[in-house]
Amino acid sequence: MWAREQCERGRTMEELKNTIWDLPTPAVTVDLDIAERNVKKMAQEAVQHGLAHRPHIKTHRSGYFAQMQIKAGCTGITAAKLGEAEVMADDGINDIFIAYPIIGEDKLERLVKLHRRVKVSTIVNSVEGARGLSRAFDAAGRTIQVLIEIDGGLNRGGVKPEAAFKFAEAIRDLPGIAIVGLMYYGGLIYNSHNIDEVEEYTRRERDCLVQTASQLRDHGFCMDVLSAGSSYSGKRPEFLEGITEIRSGHYIFNDCGQLDIHLAEPEDCALTVITTVVSKPDTHVVICDVGTKSLTSDACHYRKGYGYVIGHPDMEIYALNEEHAFLRCEEENPLQIGDKIQIIPNHACVVTNLAEKVYGMRNGVFERVITVDAKGKSV
Amino acid sequence: MWAREQCERGRTMEELKNTIWDLPTPAVTVDLDIAERNVKKMAQEAVQHGLAHRPHIKTHRSGYFAQMQIKAGCTGITAAKLGEAEVMADDGINDIFIAYPIIGEDKLERLVKLHRRVKVSTIVNSVEGARGLSRAFDAAGRTIQVLIEIDGGLNRGGVKPEAAFKFAEAIRDLPGIAIVGLMYYGGLIYNSHNIDEVEEYTRRERDCLVQTASQLRDHGFCMDVLSAGSSYSGKRPEFLEGITEIRSGHYIFNDCGQLDIHLAEPEDCALTVITTVVSKPDTHVVICDVGTKSLTSDACHYRKGYGYVIGHPDMEIYALNEEHAFLRCEEENPLQIGDKIQIIPNHACVVTNLAEKVYGMRNGVFERVITVDAKGKSV
Repeated sequence: MWAREQCERGRTMEELKNTIWDLPTPAVTVDLDIAERNVKKMAQEAVQHGLAHRPHIKTHRSGYFAQMQIKAGCTGITAAKLGEAEVMADDGINDIFIAYPIIGEDKLERLVKLHRRVKVSTIVNSVEGARGLSRAFDAAGRTIQVLIEIDGGLNRGGVKPEAAFKFAEAIRDLPGIAIVGLMYYGGLIYNSHNIDEVEEYTRRERDCLVQTASQLRDHGFCMDVLSAGSSYSGKRPEFLEGITEIRSGHYIFNDCGQLDIHLAEPEDCALTVITTVVSKPDTHVVICDVGTKSLTSDACHYRKGYGYVIGHPDMEIYALNEEHAFLRCEEENPLQIGDKIQIIPNHACVVTNLAEKVYGMRNGVFERVITVDAKGKSV
Repeated sequence: MWAREQCERGRTMEELKNTIWDLPTPAVTVDLDIAERNVKKMAQEAVQHGLAHRPHIKTHRSGYFAQMQIKAGCTGITAAKLGEAEVMADDGINDIFIAYPIIGEDKLERLVKLHRRVKVSTIVNSVEGARGLSRAFDAAGRTIQVLIEIDGGLNRGGVKPEAAFKFAEAIRDLPGIAIVGLMYYGGLIYNSHNIDEVEEYTRRERDCLVQTASQLRDHGFCMDVLSAGSSYSGKRPEFLEGITEIRSGHYIFNDCGQLDIHLAEPEDCALTVITTVVSKPDTHVVICDVGTKSLTSDACHYRKGYGYVIGHPDMEIYALNEEHAFLRCEEENPLQIGDKIQIIPNHACVVTNLAEKVYGMRNGVFERVITVDAKGKSV
């Protein structure tokens, strides 16, 4: 009945193998109700705390989900790479922040071209980088808004807070770029063991940005945008007073990285991988048809293994090969060859980037194929 | 001059940014001369040792390289997944071994369909799996050749050698399948610390297959195919007497996994990743525009870090984020923002699967874009 109705709506029978247990495995699925709930919740919390939300799209790399975020009230999006930003512009997103230094003539040319189409801003963290932007944009008769990247402790290229004023002075008069604020990536927060530590890192992030901005404002710099927010600190907006914008992206799907630290529960995890038991070498171990070519070898800080098996909390995914997952139970393993299971991966962002397609589901039933438009767009 | 000639041959200017240092980064490149040399060398060595070579295409997932291997004399190819095999058949490869248990009605249907198009064989490692194949092929009035997968010590689903006869007996009379030999994956060999250990694992692999086959032959089983060969043992064919076929795939590109154990030298590594320095947070550290979204977090057993920087053997890629590589020198780092470097990755197989495209180069000059046809085909 359902199938016939769907056929009449133009769906193919292939699409109508339609519950999560009917999908060809390994299958990457997103529960759209959970994703929408996560998106709305953070959008509301951001508004309540006077924060703009500009989610990082590296988690989904997809126009479909970016539009979902914009409709929920997000200001715009954040992209890691120019290639992602170009795809997002093609998908109708018209306010894009590229949180990455744009280096090299080929990329500067593409950035200028993109800037003619949509509102696009980026970061600077070196005089060389700022000069490149300046040359390219000045030659095009345009000005790009830039945030100064402040080092969040990772030593990943951000300007050290104590050097920010000197750096800003050095690039102050460059034509073609306009400093409008600061950007911070607090990657060390992912070393947190518990919520207290998350909150402590979040406070540090705020203090660093607010104090550095204050010093720069005193010297007449425009500091309209203070952009913060790892995927952990974005969940603690009450500690971000004085910040204007968060960039959390992870929250749309959540994963074991968030379960690890109780910033999400399994029912908040929208992205799961469905896999089939293909072998049972002994009574305790089963082998499933998913491996690093779908999940990668990304580990969690505190959780053992390579994912959380829904409905089997005691089952450990103790190893992965490229196309094999090894699952072990202390007791006799209840799974048999042909059974399917649903896994919350350690790291959702890398999973979408590997999937040939993502299945959008609602109440466990197939709704749509979602294309990962910006898959592989790391250039 | 070169550019104009190429344009006249229909190449676009974009393709003509044409040395490895002109490619937009991060760029995955393959030196086609090295790849061809690797392919020919192993094909010749296999012939010399009376071995068929059926390379695993998981390393390149590409019709272009599969055809290169067939032209060099390979018998056929090995695929991990049905989806890869389907793409290889589309690419004109007509002898395909799927080294993976095919479980589930949807996959069995696809396998039967593929079997109507090309010569395709697969493995069995469980009675349930064998019964599934039997039902599907018998119903189609066809017979598929199967190898019994023998456990190579990984406990990944292969039948234990001592249980092989009993297993073969249990599936002997199933219609629609024909046992033609044994298959072994000796993944433990990758724990080798040196060539001596590689050779020891290779001997064990041979002894296990030869002895198990001998027992089964005594009971009248056809044991025409004894298929062995990890990417390490395939490089020691002199220890594989009695084996009929190797499946090494890795050898076409090589990578740090092979450098680690001196089964390859840097000049044998065909696949490299070109990346640009985008930040220099201090005098010792530079940040490049490549991360786990291109290289994955796969580590080597013995080598520290995430790849080998050609021309800078002392530089350590000590960390990766999704789009950032962190490189450190003991001395002052000679690299500056905008410089490009060439990296041999830890694990080539996962890199092609992530690349949007692979650039085929010759003498450092662009020749062709190679499509990773079977990218993401893990289903």
